[in-house]
Amino acid sequence: MASSLPTIFYGPILHTLNHHTLQILPRALLAVAGGRIAWLIENVLPSDSGDTIRSAAASKGWHVARLHALKDGEFIIPGFIDTHTHAPQFPNLGRGQDYELLGWLHHITFPTESRFKDLEYARRTYESVVRRTLDCGTTTCCYYATLHEEATNILADVVHKLGQRAFVGKCNMDRESPDHYCEPSAQVSIEATQGTIQHIRGLKPAIPGMNLVHPILTPRFAISCTPELLGSLGELARVDRTLAIQTHISENPSEVDFVRTLFPDCRTYAHVYDAYGLLRENTVLAHGCHLDSDLLDAGADEEAISESEIELILSRGAGLSHCPTSNLNLRSGVARVGEWLDRGLKVSLGTDVSGGYSPSMLDAVRHASFCSKLVAMEHARKENSTLPVANGKPAPLGNRQLPLETLLFLATLGGAEVCNLASEVGNLVPGKSFDALVVSLRPETRNPNVWVEGDELQRSEESLQILLEKFLLCGDDRNIRAVYVAGRLAGGADASI
Amino acid sequence: MASSLPTIFYGPILHTLNHHTLQILPRALLAVAGGRIAWLIENVLPSDSGDTIRSAAASKGWHVARLHALKDGEFIIPGFIDTHTHAPQFPNLGRGQDYELLGWLHHITFPTESRFKDLEYARRTYESVVRRTLDCGTTTCCYYATLHEEATNILADVVHKLGQRAFVGKCNMDRESPDHYCEPSAQVSIEATQGTIQHIRGLKPAIPGMNLVHPILTPRFAISCTPELLGSLGELARVDRTLAIQTHISENPSEVDFVRTLFPDCRTYAHVYDAYGLLRENTVLAHGCHLDSDLLDAGADEEAISESEIELILSRGAGLSHCPTSNLNLRSGVARVGEWLDRGLKVSLGTDVSGGYSPSMLDAVRHASFCSKLVAMEHARKENSTLPVANGKPAPLGNRQLPLETLLFLATLGGAEVCNLASEVGNLVPGKSFDALVVSLRPETRNPNVWVEGDELQRSEESLQILLEKFLLCGDDRNIRAVYVAGRLAGGADASI
Repeated sequence: MASSLPTIFYGPILHTLNHHTLQILPRALLAVAGGRIAWLIENVLPSDSGDTIRSAAASKGWHVARLHALKDGEFIIPGFIDTHTHAPQFPNLGRGQDYELLGWLHHITFPTESRFKDLEYARRTYESVVRRTLDCGTTTCCYYATLHEEATNILADVVHKLGQRAFVGKCNMDRESPDHYCEPSAQVSIEATQGTIQHIRGLKPAIPGMNLVHPILTPRFAISCTPELLGSLGELARVDRTLAIQTHISENPSEVDFVRTLFPDCRTYAHVYDAYGLLRENTVLAHGCHLDSDLLDAGADEEAISESEIELILSRGAGLSHCPTSNLNLRSGVARVGEWLDRGLKVSLGTDVSGGYSPSMLDAVRHASFCSKLVAMEHARKENSTLPVANGKPAPLGNRQLPLETLLFLATLGGAEVCNLASEVGNLVPGKSFDALVVSLRPETRNPNVWVEGDELQRSEESLQILLEKFLLCGDDRNIRAVYVAGRLAGGADASI
Repeated sequence: MASSLPTIFYGPILHTLNHHTLQILPRALLAVAGGRIAWLIENVLPSDSGDTIRSAAASKGWHVARLHALKDGEFIIPGFIDTHTHAPQFPNLGRGQDYELLGWLHHITFPTESRFKDLEYARRTYESVVRRTLDCGTTTCCYYATLHEEATNILADVVHKLGQRAFVGKCNMDRESPDHYCEPSAQVSIEATQGTIQHIRGLKPAIPGMNLVHPILTPRFAISCTPELLGSLGELARVDRTLAIQTHISENPSEVDFVRTLFPDCRTYAHVYDAYGLLRENTVLAHGCHLDSDLLDAGADEEAISESEIELILSRGAGLSHCPTSNLNLRSGVARVGEWLDRGLKVSLGTDVSGGYSPSMLDAVRHASFCSKLVAMEHARKENSTLPVANGKPAPLGNRQLPLETLLFLATLGGAEVCNLASEVGNLVPGKSFDALVVSLRPETRNPNVWVEGDELQRSEESLQILLEKFLLCGDDRNIRAVYVAGRLAGGADASI
């Protein structure tokens, strides 16, 4: 659909307002113009009358509009925001499940990434990567590319062409990497980074003023960056506060130990990034399984807590990308996401392909649920009790499984917050961009895991909540019929792009 | 294909010989006649010559045969054996993820199961259930039905009609269940059980002498059966040693505690079943997350170990069904599968729908891998070391992640052992039934999680091992093109049944 033509959707909308509030609008009328949600009317009746809907639209001053009336079993949710994935690692999906992080990087990952000096391979691969993530419902994606400037630019071009919202970063890595896949100096790394920033900022948006592709500084992780390189990246960041930053933190115990030996003057892993000015409100930190792990067992005093990694990240306004599939697959650890949310951190989900074996945020949601349940089981074993739920207030999540609304939040609005884009995307509030999925659990989608019976197709709030739970736990790309980014159809099972 | 017509498959075959040995046959010629694997020739060249293949067939005395030559990216594996699932719970797939076992039974499960007194609902539901499990590649399935005799018979009829190999059991439950869903007495329960046994044994096999559907005694779990009912079931089992038995064991800590109060004279949960003669070589025990949990923390002495649950189960020859999706989803626990295998137990996998949210054994495989990695992480945290691997001998699995061959074993041959059917199914050895899947990772299968590049399509053992890993971690029903049970096409994406 042309982004300038007003389009109206009529049907159920489900989205979150914060990490503990799910809003279900069974009969919403939502108008999109210029890529944005122009207005939204709740409780429009009768459900099946196109004429009534058109007149409601007309009352808003629009006489011509395309109407998408959803069928029973269909609903709209915000698009998924994947805050951590590696585009060049898609060819390795499902490989190397026997390794832990550092061995896996050397045996599986680096040999594949080094292939992207071949630009024809890069173009072919990235086309398929971006089509896949779009079809899986990812409307905003934080991509790591490789260390190659030109191949990174190609990824940005592909994202731009296919209409996804994304952050695209060239990896910075000038040490502790194999000879065939390591940058020769900090200076070379910085110049290439400046090249990709310039390239991405030169892309002309389809809707004037609405840039979908953003550059992002991407120091791979503290291990692979010399202090000189980190310092130069910090300087780039300092002179341009709009530049986003992404990196890895506290994924694996051996990695954390190695960082400690490389940066003996820094109190913690988080303090390394902070020392170089890389921890701020638009920084995306992936993993965090072992943040403050030294404080967990000891009876930490208030001073220790006030100087902890989590408090540092919180004070800088940086956000975390929880990557549960990867964390379980590479035996990295189980992140304490509920506690992060309780303490006010910005938290989101990442697929972390190919440490994670799935590009689908639905798998990230399921495995985030698993991880929270593992934390809850560990707590129950230690305490032999379950936490009471406070009246009225959001129940603390630190020691229990994440409920449905929190899982949806992490995959959508939480991602927007971590990307510092919450005023733009993450839920379906008027004024935001229309980044959304039309989900269908109807039988013709032919996913054998999804079972919906007739009485669940009524558009009551209760039925819709059941459909949402079934979609998050059992759905796949076949249930994502249309994927809109800034109002434009960009993917999904019914898209013919 | 008619089961009497010899059919020949040419292509790669991957299967296991035991829990630590994967056999890869890149160019196998396999003949099926009368539902069985008549012969298998390895290393047949040239790969693309139908004439050569036909003449090899002719040399075995067959002049007319249908030939299935697999394409690049396709291979054959044994059919999956799901040793624990609940057919009437499929309508609840993906529901109730906030509950633990006992609350989940009362709020989600029992209300749904009680609907199966409606036989029209039962027929409609079970048709869809069995088609789905077949399309997911399950060639042998251990089904729990409901407590209803007639609906259980309908499930057996549907399984029989659709050509799946299965055990079908009417649930026995005469206490600790809701009024609307509880049998009135042990006697009524036993009579209905005898009715279903008679019904199933009266089904006429498509291939004479090859019965695919078997009855199975199904005391739901110790909690829901009075001692009188367990005693009567034990008596049925005693007079007919061919009768298989399935039940639940040590799934959840609250369940284990409750069993202890109901059977104060029995040393452990396993001893309850043993006391009633229900623990033997054709018993399938689901879950076992907390088997011998009292011995884990204490420094158990030899006497305690010799009287442990695992030793009892081992001595009786019973087998376990590990249900990792369910165990994580219902916060039940993490089973110690590697240790079970090291100690010689028969172990298999179950989807446990709908405690598990997926009917696919591929999800069971992935989550079994997760669970083993959680055990490995816990061990590494405690010991701060990894286990040495013994030279030549199979490496002990107790404290490490399950390797690829073990994961495939659990989903196939391990299941056959637990079902006491290892002489009939589980791998592709001449003489066994041809229960097998044609798997394809070719791009036209359109699964966005599966990525295969040109050089991985070579039929080397190394490439095939990569394809197998990608299939187990990233594949879904779209990659299962044909499902054969006893040589008959019974499901899969290319089947038109």
